[in-house]
Amino acid sequence: MKKILFTLLLHATACMWHGFFGKHFMKYTLSLLALAVLLFSCKDNGNNNNDNMVYGAPKATVTKEPFSKEVIKGPLAFAPAVPAIPDADTVDIKMDATHKLYEVSRGVFYKAWTFGDSVPGPVIRVRVGQTVRFSMTDRSNDTLHNVSMQMNGQPLPNMQHSIDFHAGMVNPEDKYRSIFPGETIHFEWTANYPGVFMYHCATPSVLVHMANGMIGMVIVEPKDGYPTKVDREYAIVQNEYYMKKQGDVYVLDTAAAKLKQPTYVTFNGKAGQYVPRPLKAKAGERIRMYVMNVGPNNPTNFHVIGTILDKVWLDGNPKNELVGMQSVYLGPASSAIVEFVIPENGTYPFVDHSFANAEMGASGAISTE
Amino acid sequence: MKKILFTLLLHATACMWHGFFGKHFMKYTLSLLALAVLLFSCKDNGNNNNDNMVYGAPKATVTKEPFSKEVIKGPLAFAPAVPAIPDADTVDIKMDATHKLYEVSRGVFYKAWTFGDSVPGPVIRVRVGQTVRFSMTDRSNDTLHNVSMQMNGQPLPNMQHSIDFHAGMVNPEDKYRSIFPGETIHFEWTANYPGVFMYHCATPSVLVHMANGMIGMVIVEPKDGYPTKVDREYAIVQNEYYMKKQGDVYVLDTAAAKLKQPTYVTFNGKAGQYVPRPLKAKAGERIRMYVMNVGPNNPTNFHVIGTILDKVWLDGNPKNELVGMQSVYLGPASSAIVEFVIPENGTYPFVDHSFANAEMGASGAISTE
Amino acid sequence: MKKILFTLLLHATACMWHGFFGKHFMKYTLSLLALAVLLFSCKDNGNNNNDNMVYGAPKATVTKEPFSKEVIKGPLAFAPAVPAIPDADTVDIKMDATHKLYEVSRGVFYKAWTFGDSVPGPVIRVRVGQTVRFSMTDRSNDTLHNVSMQMNGQPLPNMQHSIDFHAGMVNPEDKYRSIFPGETIHFEWTANYPGVFMYHCATPSVLVHMANGMIGMVIVEPKDGYPTKVDREYAIVQNEYYMKKQGDVYVLDTAAAKLKQPTYVTFNGKAGQYVPRPLKAKAGERIRMYVMNVGPNNPTNFHVIGTILDKVWLDGNPKNELVGMQSVYLGPASSAIVEFVIPENGTYPFVDHSFANAEMGASGAISTE
Repeated sequence: MKKILFTLLLHATACMWHGFFGKHFMKYTLSLLALAVLLFSCKDNGNNNNDNMVYGAPKATVTKEPFSKEVIKGPLAFAPAVPAIPDADTVDIKMDATHKLYEVSRGVFYKAWTFGDSVPGPVIRVRVGQTVRFSMTDRSNDTLHNVSMQMNGQPLPNMQHSIDFHAGMVNPEDKYRSIFPGETIHFEWTANYPGVFMYHCATPSVLVHMANGMIGMVIVEPKDGYPTKVDREYAIVQNEYYMKKQGDVYVLDTAAAKLKQPTYVTFNGKAGQYVPRPLKAKAGERIRMYVMNVGPNNPTNFHVIGTILDKVWLDGNPKNELVGMQSVYLGPASSAIVEFVIPENGTYPFVDHSFANAEMGASGAISTE
Repeated sequence: MKKILFTLLLHATACMWHGFFGKHFMKYTLSLLALAVLLFSCKDNGNNNNDNMVYGAPKATVTKEPFSKEVIKGPLAFAPAVPAIPDADTVDIKMDATHKLYEVSRGVFYKAWTFGDSVPGPVIRVRVGQTVRFSMTDRSNDTLHNVSMQMNGQPLPNMQHSIDFHAGMVNPEDKYRSIFPGETIHFEWTANYPGVFMYHCATPSVLVHMANGMIGMVIVEPKDGYPTKVDREYAIVQNEYYMKKQGDVYVLDTAAAKLKQPTYVTFNGKAGQYVPRPLKAKAGERIRMYVMNVGPNNPTNFHVIGTILDKVWLDGNPKNELVGMQSVYLGPASSAIVEFVIPENGTYPFVDHSFANAEMGASGAISTE
Repeated sequence: MKKILFTLLLHATACMWHGFFGKHFMKYTLSLLALAVLLFSCKDNGNNNNDNMVYGAPKATVTKEPFSKEVIKGPLAFAPAVPAIPDADTVDIKMDATHKLYEVSRGVFYKAWTFGDSVPGPVIRVRVGQTVRFSMTDRSNDTLHNVSMQMNGQPLPNMQHSIDFHAGMVNPEDKYRSIFPGETIHFEWTANYPGVFMYHCATPSVLVHMANGMIGMVIVEPKDGYPTKVDREYAIVQNEYYMKKQGDVYVLDTAAAKLKQPTYVTFNGKAGQYVPRPLKAKAGERIRMYVMNVGPNNPTNFHVIGTILDKVWLDGNPKNELVGMQSVYLGPASSAIVEFVIPENGTYPFVDHSFANAEMGASGAISTE
């Protein structure tokens, strides 16, 4: 593609050199310009322009300091909400690792491990080129914060934690390493690719840490925004819980996790939460959903009943476009941006169309009421 | 893309205005025309042209009338056959919900719930822009129709039913609602997107209704047909059965369905039916298959042994094109149109390459004999 | 697309015919040429140019001859290594079917069935247009070769075998048929499509033969090579083992295979082998991985920790391009070429992000150390 462009430009230069001016020149140059624009607008089949990418980052540091009052800091939102993108080259974010009882379904309290006291963790949203200056404190030994969450009297265990950003391009040995309870890790990474990316605790057993709730979503917008305009945006994280009872509450059933046989499958951490309290929309509106399947094990076939996905961008990158889809099949650690129109007044359920999952909680709704 | 085109046209108009006629004009205009055609033929990365879409439809109605003689009405075919597309703006289709014993494998009779007495239900085929005027009677209490199908003396249960068309863009609360035995629902929807779309009963437990057999395929052709020409077309619906014995026959094993552990996985409802009776083709022919995975739970990796899928259109939309694929991985409620050449005389098995499924019945063949 | 091109050429010819020469002609022709190149470089949405494809091949032959000294012959390599492409129209390859004890994890010896004494079998690499002249001897009765591999004193069973190349377009009834122990089958096939294709034993039960280890990868390069340049290439085959103990060693657990519940999931046949002995790379290098998921049952969500997949070519065909992916979800018998940059010095684990699989052995690493 670049070769063609080069040929054209060479040609144009040659024409100028030979004194080919006047109305011919004008007309000709405009044609060339149109061609050039066309060429650039076509999908490039060669290498991506990786010139502006930032590979790697300064070494991570680990500090010890008193626990801060808040467990999160920075431009964050909790799904289905999507935060605004800060207008800065660098974005400061802090999300602490905590242990707490989390209500997954009515009366079902799970001994979760979280980022920012929430399953999933907060939604992070930046733009290509921005640098995230991140820090996280392991508060698993923060008895003041954790004890109040207890129900069954047993202490939650102290535990090493870490965080791995799929949106980053940095040495995981350094940045994604585990810290001890009471420690705070600081590192940065720059968003090189647009998309919807997973983050999760990467401390072994990674399966256990993810299944316990240490998962979330980063949205990286293209430098010039999305090619479409929408009326509303929602963030949906799908995850699996593997549970067994321990006293009055529930804890991880590791054997079930290894067999990939979940107890609950949820949108944004709570089984079927958007059935009684649907997300809002109006007839005729175009909705964008950021859908992230964090697994830890199984795929989802995301589907909205009563409409068709006008656009699907795999892993959230507009270059990976599918159109007119009834559903999108996403592996564990895969995502999509989906856009669709609400055709008329009504209630539009959305589900994982692997229907055993829908019936385990991966079921919600958008309503115009 | 539209901006470039607009610029070019503006440019052309300006040229004409300034009296730039004669041979230069002719030559120039033709170049512009060629560019314009090219621009239109390129994939548009902006919004789809959604101007002609029909969103929503009049309210559904429910009537009570005597059972009709036939359980289906309209331009329908049973897979692997594909019906012709009627030459009309509106297509009238009726498929009744029935309960009947269905032979899944030799001597294995399953207490199925069906559309039109068949698992999968009939194939519907329309063109983008056509409106389907649909009706369905819940005949689960039609003893005359059902009793003749009995083997083990026990009555089949009366049951509410409904139908959900993934090809439609209408309020599911209204059109896809459940009706009682003896009732008939009437509603319409317009085909907005080309593709291969699932339909299924959407009455809770949806998993149970789908696993019992209430699933099928709608083919929506692009307005101007497909970009390729083929010699033969076949429709293949892949579904899972979850069974346990009840007397002489088989009924749904709900626990197995929840664990996603099927008993049979079939093409067009009967385990391995195209192994002894292969689909027909000739050496050198190009075959188009409409492949719909209706699940209800698991994916399929559809593969034809001895050839390569020249084209794969995800969800049946030619814009979602992959080429030269050995298989296509389809989630439950995902589909593809696949096209391939029969390279020489012989027998070409097709399978779900998740081979445990192939050995549970998801195995067929195309033969030149 | 071809029509546009034809129109342009017709136009050019007409211009020449009418004596439209001189500087105008030159300029005009060059524009046309640029357009023509552009048209050819755009993705063709019509039929592929299938003119050069070779469909079918001469009948396979089966011979009986003494066992050769070597179990493989020809330009082969063992993954993660990738062989060079021979500079010839025809490539001679021999890989024998053998039975041997194979160490899957430290001290875990499995009674495997192999191609070329290895799980996966050797990597084959050719170019579009080349013909593979293949032969395979069933050495399951080659006591001299097999007995030395024994640990538990029990003989390995004699068994029919066969081989099915997903890269071939030939009658499977003929070329992929089963042979008896001591026989050698000879047949050929021509590479029509670029990609990364599976090969496997196709003798029933195919599930059993594949689960026992008879699986491997063929790389078919595009005629003109890949559109990108890379610093290193690695071949990764992911497979599942289903095991139960028999004396001191392990054998296939068919029931587990039917339930799709593996014991080990590995990269290149040995659980976690690249964790203690990582693949090599340097910071800043661009890596190409040929990733083939041979199942036999489950998908993989292939992910490299600490980087992003700059390009993903589904089934290894550069026309099926996704960009900026955090992972690629591949069904059993699906593949991808993935390319990524090593952002800075460090160790970059790669995993199946279905994390139960990662913890069963589908975990490796690339390191700059």
